[in-house]
Amino acid sequence: MADALPPIACCRSLGAPTLSDDEAEATAALFKALGDPARVKIVNLLATSEEPVCVCEFVPALGLAQPTVSHHLKKLADAGLLEREQRGKWAYFSLNPEASAGLAGLVELQEVTS
Amino acid sequence: MADALPPIACCRSLGAPTLSDDEAEATAALFKALGDPARVKIVNLLATSEEPVCVCEFVPALGLAQPTVSHHLKKLADAGLLEREQRGKWAYFSLNPEASAGLAGLVELQEVTS
Repeated sequence: MADALPPIACCRSLGAPTLSDDEAEATAALFKALGDPARVKIVNLLATSEEPVCVCEFVPALGLAQPTVSHHLKKLADAGLLEREQRGKWAYFSLNPEASAGLAGLVELQEVTS
Repeated sequence: MADALPPIACCRSLGAPTLSDDEAEATAALFKALGDPARVKIVNLLATSEEPVCVCEFVPALGLAQPTVSHHLKKLADAGLLEREQRGKWAYFSLNPEASAGLAGLVELQEVTS
């Protein structure tokens, strides 16, 4: 497994006293993954769902074609924000339990600004 | 003043029960503004600075040309994340005091996922 850590695992808070080039890259990659209205809606749908959500449910909810939906889901999963589970024919997605805490930590600016 | 509200003023939490198209667009615009390593570093520098920071200080800190730095600062200011103050020849930037709370609210997923 030579894969790089997903951004959520390696990026640092925006308010961290020092931020290396790699950390800035990883943090930016996470924000970039969320910089699309369809992806914001996907995360919103997952955040308001009790259960993992099937790819097939996102298609009508977003009004986008399935390949487009799958593309957005892959980008979010690659960033470490979503977990993917195969159930027979369909993939189901849920928010990575660490994503919420990780995202909240990313924007934790108060430590030095207040 | 027919300008649209900056994203920070109008976007909703990712965990909000309903998210309109406009809110998803505004939220995505904010994340997109932060989806660049130089901009992450700018926000990091401002978050760790007690005082507003001069454009001329970002140039050596980021190792980028001044037009590039000014471009990134403008994108962040347009998104409502930075405040700009002209002091003679130079512009000084600081984090918008509401930006920290606004960003933190954006990624507030816990309300429905925990």
